Amino acid sequence: MSANTSRPSGRANDQLRTVEIIRNYTKHAEGSVLVKFGDTHVLCTASVEEKVPGFLKGKGQGWVTAEYGMLPRSTGSRMDREAARGKQSGRTQEIQRLIGRSLRAIIDLEKLGERSIQIDCDVIQADGGTRTASITGAYVALQDAISYLMNKELIKESPLKDSVAAISVGVYKGTPVLDLDYIEDSDCDTDMNVVMTGKGGFVEIQGTAEGEPFSHDDMTAMLSLANAGIKELCIKQKQSLGL
Amino acid sequence: MSANTSRPSGRANDQLRTVEIIRNYTKHAEGSVLVKFGDTHVLCTASVEEKVPGFLKGKGQGWVTAEYGMLPRSTGSRMDREAARGKQSGRTQEIQRLIGRSLRAIIDLEKLGERSIQIDCDVIQADGGTRTASITGAYVALQDAISYLMNKELIKESPLKDSVAAISVGVYKGTPVLDLDYIEDSDCDTDMNVVMTGKGGFVEIQGTAEGEPFSHDDMTAMLSLANAGIKELCIKQKQSLGL
Amino acid sequence: MSANTSRPSGRANDQLRTVEIIRNYTKHAEGSVLVKFGDTHVLCTASVEEKVPGFLKGKGQGWVTAEYGMLPRSTGSRMDREAARGKQSGRTQEIQRLIGRSLRAIIDLEKLGERSIQIDCDVIQADGGTRTASITGAYVALQDAISYLMNKELIKESPLKDSVAAISVGVYKGTPVLDLDYIEDSDCDTDMNVVMTGKGGFVEIQGTAEGEPFSHDDMTAMLSLANAGIKELCIKQKQSLGL
Amino acid sequence: MSANTSRPSGRANDQLRTVEIIRNYTKHAEGSVLVKFGDTHVLCTASVEEKVPGFLKGKGQGWVTAEYGMLPRSTGSRMDREAARGKQSGRTQEIQRLIGRSLRAIIDLEKLGERSIQIDCDVIQADGGTRTASITGAYVALQDAISYLMNKELIKESPLKDSVAAISVGVYKGTPVLDLDYIEDSDCDTDMNVVMTGKGGFVEIQGTAEGEPFSHDDMTAMLSLANAGIKELCIKQKQSLGL
Amino acid sequence: MSANTSRPSGRANDQLRTVEIIRNYTKHAEGSVLVKFGDTHVLCTASVEEKVPGFLKGKGQGWVTAEYGMLPRSTGSRMDREAARGKQSGRTQEIQRLIGRSLRAIIDLEKLGERSIQIDCDVIQADGGTRTASITGAYVALQDAISYLMNKELIKESPLKDSVAAISVGVYKGTPVLDLDYIEDSDCDTDMNVVMTGKGGFVEIQGTAEGEPFSHDDMTAMLSLANAGIKELCIKQKQSLGL
Amino acid sequence: MSANTSRPSGRANDQLRTVEIIRNYTKHAEGSVLVKFGDTHVLCTASVEEKVPGFLKGKGQGWVTAEYGMLPRSTGSRMDREAARGKQSGRTQEIQRLIGRSLRAIIDLEKLGERSIQIDCDVIQADGGTRTASITGAYVALQDAISYLMNKELIKESPLKDSVAAISVGVYKGTPVLDLDYIEDSDCDTDMNVVMTGKGGFVEIQGTAEGEPFSHDDMTAMLSLANAGIKELCIKQKQSLGL
Repeated sequence: MSANTSRPSGRANDQLRTVEIIRNYTKHAEGSVLVKFGDTHVLCTASVEEKVPGFLKGKGQGWVTAEYGMLPRSTGSRMDREAARGKQSGRTQEIQRLIGRSLRAIIDLEKLGERSIQIDCDVIQADGGTRTASITGAYVALQDAISYLMNKELIKESPLKDSVAAISVGVYKGTPVLDLDYIEDSDCDTDMNVVMTGKGGFVEIQGTAEGEPFSHDDMTAMLSLANAGIKELCIKQKQSLGL
Repeated sequence: MSANTSRPSGRANDQLRTVEIIRNYTKHAEGSVLVKFGDTHVLCTASVEEKVPGFLKGKGQGWVTAEYGMLPRSTGSRMDREAARGKQSGRTQEIQRLIGRSLRAIIDLEKLGERSIQIDCDVIQADGGTRTASITGAYVALQDAISYLMNKELIKESPLKDSVAAISVGVYKGTPVLDLDYIEDSDCDTDMNVVMTGKGGFVEIQGTAEGEPFSHDDMTAMLSLANAGIKELCIKQKQSLGL
Repeated sequence: MSANTSRPSGRANDQLRTVEIIRNYTKHAEGSVLVKFGDTHVLCTASVEEKVPGFLKGKGQGWVTAEYGMLPRSTGSRMDREAARGKQSGRTQEIQRLIGRSLRAIIDLEKLGERSIQIDCDVIQADGGTRTASITGAYVALQDAISYLMNKELIKESPLKDSVAAISVGVYKGTPVLDLDYIEDSDCDTDMNVVMTGKGGFVEIQGTAEGEPFSHDDMTAMLSLANAGIKELCIKQKQSLGL
Repeated sequence: MSANTSRPSGRANDQLRTVEIIRNYTKHAEGSVLVKFGDTHVLCTASVEEKVPGFLKGKGQGWVTAEYGMLPRSTGSRMDREAARGKQSGRTQEIQRLIGRSLRAIIDLEKLGERSIQIDCDVIQADGGTRTASITGAYVALQDAISYLMNKELIKESPLKDSVAAISVGVYKGTPVLDLDYIEDSDCDTDMNVVMTGKGGFVEIQGTAEGEPFSHDDMTAMLSLANAGIKELCIKQKQSLGL
Repeated sequence: MSANTSRPSGRANDQLRTVEIIRNYTKHAEGSVLVKFGDTHVLCTASVEEKVPGFLKGKGQGWVTAEYGMLPRSTGSRMDREAARGKQSGRTQEIQRLIGRSLRAIIDLEKLGERSIQIDCDVIQADGGTRTASITGAYVALQDAISYLMNKELIKESPLKDSVAAISVGVYKGTPVLDLDYIEDSDCDTDMNVVMTGKGGFVEIQGTAEGEPFSHDDMTAMLSLANAGIKELCIKQKQSLGL
Repeated sequence: MSANTSRPSGRANDQLRTVEIIRNYTKHAEGSVLVKFGDTHVLCTASVEEKVPGFLKGKGQGWVTAEYGMLPRSTGSRMDREAARGKQSGRTQEIQRLIGRSLRAIIDLEKLGERSIQIDCDVIQADGGTRTASITGAYVALQDAISYLMNKELIKESPLKDSVAAISVGVYKGTPVLDLDYIEDSDCDTDMNVVMTGKGGFVEIQGTAEGEPFSHDDMTAMLSLANAGIKELCIKQKQSLGL
């Protein structure tokens, strides 16, 4: 890990925030995980339902989908409650679609059988990187829900083909850095979210130039940081699952 | 405390669940309290905003209002997310109106000045009594928000006239009991929520016969239980606030 | 009845407004009742539908539910039309839930059979107490709808176990009074709605301190007024039904 | 009036239903009229508001607009409540736009001054022709609201240029008839609503072939019936207003 | 054709704008027609769906319905996008109901069989008369969809009983004129939309006095213009269909 | 350009579909461009409005934002109309946010002044790649709107810092290919949308593994194809603008 003084947190450019993954955080859900990326805290629950959406009925396969929300005062200034406004923002929908796709990339929906696993990612406290924390925690909750189904002998073989985790990278004050916190996120030139499997394949890459367009070299550097960061997250996931 | 074997939890009829009040639970809000009534856990935040709703502009007074939500899997089986459905249920609106009225009963809105305090009560885990836990925790968060304003010298004198707390009482299998948990709540004849001030005045009483109508004697017994229970809650609130 | 000059209407503290219950007010509904509590006029209709909501299908029981609305200019200044705004207010939902619960408290839903009775309470003119007038009139409309079903021999035995009526009580200028009109309601310290059965059991009690918290003595006095007032309403209901 | 046995009601082809216009039906509105076209009963209120919609601010003129609703059980089988469904139907919007245009056709909005008159037409009981009854009653309510403004000396000269009334005509079982009731309306070939001023000018004509297209001769006959019918309505309006 | 200098476009009073009907404008729809009435361009598609709405299930008949929309910048100043606002305006609903009724007037729904034809009329560029252009183009798209069904041998006999077309007429600066463009429409005294079948029967007449009420003579003149104009449109429709 | 037989269209792996950019397609908008990527046709309009959204008022800068829609039958089977459903899908919101960000990346909002340019991208016919065609066409419409402002001397210096275009790349049957059409898009392993400036900087990269995760080598190949494809698009844009 290289020395670095330019980040507001004093972290090295390739340094994750402190990551914590707490399982069984609430008692009702089949999977319930509080994931912390520093001051970003997200509660990820996995709920098993013995039915599938209409478009999958009778197709011999299951479904995994996700919803995302932020508590109104998870942020520095209070946001409107989406339930009170009567609709989810474009950002919310974008994030929950991303989480759903990321999880479906590592599960064999036929092996899951005609049932759904509904993932809920609710941000208790936000400090940047809520979507990457959500994906990282949601995988652990999903794994717990699968274990529940296997323990109940509702499925015989795990439908999970791999694990999945996510991290943000960006170009902050001209330098590629790993795992942006809110201060960095608000002031970076480029913000990229990378979702990868435990085996190292890319599931999603979403990079956005907030200020100046970014170059091919920036991208190479960011992908390298992301790759290393996600390897660390996979280890944390395994540890929390006792694997 | 009298012996009792009829309650599923083994509690005495006049026994509260274990109550915990954790301040500063999240970092952004001016008041942030996690309140636990047994397995019912509610995060109550108080957000100060230097503006008032349209109907109060220029009237020389402030406003306190509340919103309430349940995380989709705070309950035994997953509920639809209200933000995704596009509207708050009648139950949600009823509860958040109750919380708001309860808090406004103990604050002098003119002394608050032309600013708002927005209370958010979000249920992390539910096991009955979420509205009474919300009110009890919200008072502590409100107190913290007031302290914040006084520390910042934005107000000179506390606008709080009293404290407020709430508890449920009911008739369960023919016997009046205090602080119903979910199992009791699902199977009781009468369910009553009582909101009282620290000085012992009633702010709200909402009693509903779920099965048989209740008698005047039932009511007298329930009010007596509520009165004692709320006294205990007031002590917990004071302790948590270091008063 | 005690003399009293403090009420704006000149009524005694324990005096109801003039109550009128007019059956068969409109021609289509199975039960159609215009109820008047003084200048508060509510049209209550009961509509029989030979189906039950999804959650009751195949359960061998019926359902009774209620909806409530105010005509936009039933009030002193015009209110927005809820249909045009696109949603019912929290207050509306709270009231219609209360009406539904009150009626379900006196009916045996299994004896009703797999059918629904939908109650609609629409306020034609408002002068305080619209929810208590609604419940009082809705019971008569419900009774008429049951008679319709029995006359048609669709049910053999009446599923009604009791009658139900409601009245408001409050503390107005320091004195407990019965059946608040709009002027009193706007300026009272405490407002309590009480729903009772013909046999004298409590179905709902909803008391709210609008200004100062209320004491145990206030409550005893208010309940006593309510009890006497509801007895009078029961007589009016019976008379209108020719029982 | 010619003899006729083909209409279900036994009315002559050119015969209106019994028309009643009851002013001051409710107490709060500046104009409040219950209009009856036989079994069709509509409450029309006119509410004066001392403001204009945004698009007219500062333009030195007023506004007249209308809203329309049906009580859920005004009809033979209960309709969904639009406030509960969360939106007004296309039919409702079409009718309220028609009522608004009809009234604006006879008022000088500049003479009205920068204020609005909001018309609400709420159908208490329906038996065909609710929109024509609404327009006919709304004019009387509007006249009363104008008188209110003149009595208060808020306007000096009446902005009303004329009166307005409406009637339906149609082709029922091959014969042109006046003022269709619900049975006729459900089974006619053509349905036409005609709105005319007291001076005999056309404000709106809306004719629809429900079954077979209609001919130029049908139309001539229908317009002639409408013309005579509206003359009768104008007399009723004048009588009710004591003009 | 009479000479006329009073129309902004220089057209004669009885002169249509240049009409163009382009079939197969897009490739997916069973019928796809771009219709131009001068600078008003509307894309009309007809989509066959092998199902009927719930209220027609098992009734042995089909359905034809229509939706209408304007691209946000089809107009001189940009309009809000209805999808973003979250609801269709009253005007939109009124127009799409009119288009649907007009097409259902010329089709035998039983012969269509248990399937739906959904018409979409989307205004690419607007210059007045979008609803009449929509109906005129929609008929051609509907004819193409019927041909598709017959070519596929899904139906044996055409369910079309006639053709249908529509045109606007109005009183502009005191003179009855045919096919109003936007400038005329914005400044006319009366605007009337007339829908007729190829055989010359009236399907819909909707006339509105925008300023002064119109007389019986105005109406006679307008209907005569409409009749001639629709005859021309029928010829254009036939030509485009190669009939 | 390499030979290739594996693509359904017979195109080479690095071959764009035929691209056409037609300016001034409709007459009202300040910029109006029909862009065709093969059978994908999108109408992009740019509307100048002399105001900014609330959050920018008085900040001395302008705004560029975008909305996106698909005509219901632009696709193989008809989609629900979003205006009728009452909300925009998550996909629609995601795309319109992407278009807006892409355009804001190349414009100096301060130089634009306190005005907005609203981009509307409406898909007339869809065959894959509607978002990339939208961005590519929207840039040309934006350029035209800027020219309009400069010709009117409302701004002196062009606020455009660069041009922007977008293309999709993917892994289809194991091979990286450029500019996926609908058939390829429905059956590819990976789909990536790349937005670049004329100067060759990245603005957005959004890559999603639809089936198998993709490798670092896949990504390198895809970025190389995108880079070349966007260079071609820039030439097309310049040609259409006569630059």
